[in-house]
Amino acid sequence: MAEADAQRFRGIEAATGQPIEPDYPISTVADVDAACAAATAAFDAYRETDAEARAAFLEAIGEEIMALGDALLDRAARESGLPLARLTGERGRTVGQLKLFAQVVRDGLWRQVRIDPAMPDRQPLPRADLRMRMVPLGPVAVFGASNFPLAFSTAGGDTAAALAAGCPVVVKGHPAHPGTDAMVAGAIRAAAQRTGMPDGVFGHVAGPGNALGTALVQDPRIAAVGFTGSRAGGLALVRLAQARDVPIPVYAEMSSVNPVVVMPAALAARGAALGTAFVGSLTMGAGQFCTNPGLVLAVEGDGIDAFEAAAAEALGGHAPQPMLTGGIRAAYAEGTAALAGNAAVRELACGQAGDGVASETARLFVTDAAAVRSDPALTEEVFGASSLIVRCRDLDELAAILDTVEGQLTATILLDEADHEPARRLVPILERKAGRVLANGWPTGVEVAPAMVHGGPFPATSDGRSTSVGTLAIDRFLRPVCYQDLPELLLPPELRDGAAGPRLVDGKPA
Amino acid sequence: MAEADAQRFRGIEAATGQPIEPDYPISTVADVDAACAAATAAFDAYRETDAEARAAFLEAIGEEIMALGDALLDRAARESGLPLARLTGERGRTVGQLKLFAQVVRDGLWRQVRIDPAMPDRQPLPRADLRMRMVPLGPVAVFGASNFPLAFSTAGGDTAAALAAGCPVVVKGHPAHPGTDAMVAGAIRAAAQRTGMPDGVFGHVAGPGNALGTALVQDPRIAAVGFTGSRAGGLALVRLAQARDVPIPVYAEMSSVNPVVVMPAALAARGAALGTAFVGSLTMGAGQFCTNPGLVLAVEGDGIDAFEAAAAEALGGHAPQPMLTGGIRAAYAEGTAALAGNAAVRELACGQAGDGVASETARLFVTDAAAVRSDPALTEEVFGASSLIVRCRDLDELAAILDTVEGQLTATILLDEADHEPARRLVPILERKAGRVLANGWPTGVEVAPAMVHGGPFPATSDGRSTSVGTLAIDRFLRPVCYQDLPELLLPPELRDGAAGPRLVDGKPA
Repeated sequence: MAEADAQRFRGIEAATGQPIEPDYPISTVADVDAACAAATAAFDAYRETDAEARAAFLEAIGEEIMALGDALLDRAARESGLPLARLTGERGRTVGQLKLFAQVVRDGLWRQVRIDPAMPDRQPLPRADLRMRMVPLGPVAVFGASNFPLAFSTAGGDTAAALAAGCPVVVKGHPAHPGTDAMVAGAIRAAAQRTGMPDGVFGHVAGPGNALGTALVQDPRIAAVGFTGSRAGGLALVRLAQARDVPIPVYAEMSSVNPVVVMPAALAARGAALGTAFVGSLTMGAGQFCTNPGLVLAVEGDGIDAFEAAAAEALGGHAPQPMLTGGIRAAYAEGTAALAGNAAVRELACGQAGDGVASETARLFVTDAAAVRSDPALTEEVFGASSLIVRCRDLDELAAILDTVEGQLTATILLDEADHEPARRLVPILERKAGRVLANGWPTGVEVAPAMVHGGPFPATSDGRSTSVGTLAIDRFLRPVCYQDLPELLLPPELRDGAAGPRLVDGKPA
Repeated sequence: MAEADAQRFRGIEAATGQPIEPDYPISTVADVDAACAAATAAFDAYRETDAEARAAFLEAIGEEIMALGDALLDRAARESGLPLARLTGERGRTVGQLKLFAQVVRDGLWRQVRIDPAMPDRQPLPRADLRMRMVPLGPVAVFGASNFPLAFSTAGGDTAAALAAGCPVVVKGHPAHPGTDAMVAGAIRAAAQRTGMPDGVFGHVAGPGNALGTALVQDPRIAAVGFTGSRAGGLALVRLAQARDVPIPVYAEMSSVNPVVVMPAALAARGAALGTAFVGSLTMGAGQFCTNPGLVLAVEGDGIDAFEAAAAEALGGHAPQPMLTGGIRAAYAEGTAALAGNAAVRELACGQAGDGVASETARLFVTDAAAVRSDPALTEEVFGASSLIVRCRDLDELAAILDTVEGQLTATILLDEADHEPARRLVPILERKAGRVLANGWPTGVEVAPAMVHGGPFPATSDGRSTSVGTLAIDRFLRPVCYQDLPELLLPPELRDGAAGPRLVDGKPA
């Protein structure tokens, strides 16, 4: 559809709830179809670009994003309500992520090349020449996230990983930040053009509502989906993907309360300091992190009162921050009201009052293990700066509660030297529950690095075998192919005799 | 339930359709529950067994299988109708597979250890110490396959890979070979006991019907499913797994026609020899291989008549072999009858007549590309020794047909030197369609090796990101966990400073 004829929509200023100029065209289902057709047409050419060309494309995206300058940060700040300092850091993370994936592409380990040379004289049967590499799945649909308008959105983690893997990407921009989305989409297109990538390597659709996303996931040319958002949204995409004639993987990062265990010696030694630090992690970015600490498990004893008192004091001084969208604010209000209205739960403290229009009040609740046992829904995520402290009688009770929580992105243990030995029994539980286990830190803050895992068992994600942050994320968009006895001319270059790059030969690094 | 009180069932002799002594107890849903409980209880202990202990367990399974001697082969031959020579080879493959996974466990690459050392002085923020390893998913349900009573059944590929990964296994034995299944289950139990593995590391249920398998996949303690069998059976398990409160991965290897492209120069030079060799691959094991060549694409021209004539002659002399089960025989009869009754399809040849009770007749059909275009269902799998030759006008038409076939386990290209250049355009299509691309060989015969991929896009499997043969199969039962700033005592041994074993440090092999 010609852009002039399109229906249009606007972003909303998070701090005021008012629309922001300019308006943007609403994509149509025909636009989805065209983007998927172009992505498919680009696939064979793009997936065989050499490492240097593909790395240069990823780096060029970062450069084009930087070239947008302060206008991008200003726009993102207005649309998200997140502070400029945070968005400056997030831009650095976004660009750094693209550079890191460029390095991954160059290193070549992601191809997982394996070569088992022929054994023509083996008895009773000869062995064929077998060579394996990872190949990209195909065009990937990426859904931008509202809470990271740069690092997990249009040119965010999933886009970077999919492009690095050799998959064309079609982004459905998040309607909470259409301006940010449009600017970043333009940067990617400019980078693709500048580095000579095939048309269709990057497609982009935007607009409110679910029709575009539904059409995108149902399109038979889409081979995988990356999503970060609500549990309801993620599960809806999973259902759509499973109902296709050819089902496809959906990597939906959905919900997590990120349990924090405070061990007795640490609590006794530094309960107050931990309480203050806890509220710092809880309220960062209005608590709108997937890794926000929404559940604290502590044994009643020395230090727990100091922990709670310090947390209450820190929270009481906390100024309200705008939330990302009206929908998120409403869900937060509903979730915290349910906790406040639960007879088994006591409100320990709250932050300063929000304006009721665009910002909400941080809230902290306390209950005991018995209440959680009888109502496990108490431990479900309330997205935003709300957390629940669960007082446990002893470590046995704490371990039992921990064993009942759902799958998580992170699980944290705060401990001192004397806690190490008693904490050992908790590690297997934490490991079964979460994609990342932390000691003496806070789960907010996710390093983009080779060893990072930002994933975890359902319902933290729809596929706990994967990560959405860090270089391992490239694996989610790959599948293995074995080439048996192929003549040199038909073999992919990296599988030919004498090709450079890391490989296993007969299963051993060579 | 006490075994004495159980309902009982018998195996059926494939060659005669008659029941075989003795009878075996039919497991109950309560037995499934008990096996899952025991597997869960064993999980934490089993997954932390050291590499040497776990490898010794895998090797002991192989030894106990060998100790069953000829009685195992005789029983498997009676139950499956497969010849003793084939089953002797299959036993070797089964034991070799267990030994290979023992080596994989010892090598340690499967852990995918990554270490990103702390950077306490990094600006603007320090980096935490990040360490990653793969951990097992949890108890795995394995469904035995009828067509490989040893190598893909009770102690087959999925069992070996899951046990190697650190997952307890609960096998649902295939009811077509209850005696073989019971003997091998006993061997695994003996090996577990002899090597001191925790009780519950291996569980086993058996019986006809779907109730046991349904209960197993629905059990909340099962974390993944391995299956080899029919498309209907695999999809039913996938649906059960997706409908759980916590969905789990299902690795179902389902259906494949394994297209074989015969290139013009090869056809002209050696059409007759290729036709004879094709029938050898087609009729092996009564065609009851997942990798059976069920679709041949060839350009009309020199050699195609010789190819067809030689294939027809070879097939005409083919003696009928028993099929695995009555159900498979009935489905084969139905599928071949549909092809024979299709006006656009001509029957080129058939093998000698079967007895109509326990054996079937190999059949070969011919059609043209236009017929396949108007009825793509012609290219769907008929499990058994049936194949369809599709005559194409030229390579363009052949490529277009190839591009419409469903996902496959294998895709083969038969070619001579002069075909190399024109074949290049087909490789990307073959690669998008299949998990393994072969040149100048036959897809039957799947090497158990590091570079093997026995998998492929849907509907060849339910998850094309994985393989069920070869050492890469261990990955399907793993997920990554990151450990951030954990004190030494709480770190898994292989992640501690100075631990032996392969690893990436800051993303680079160290």
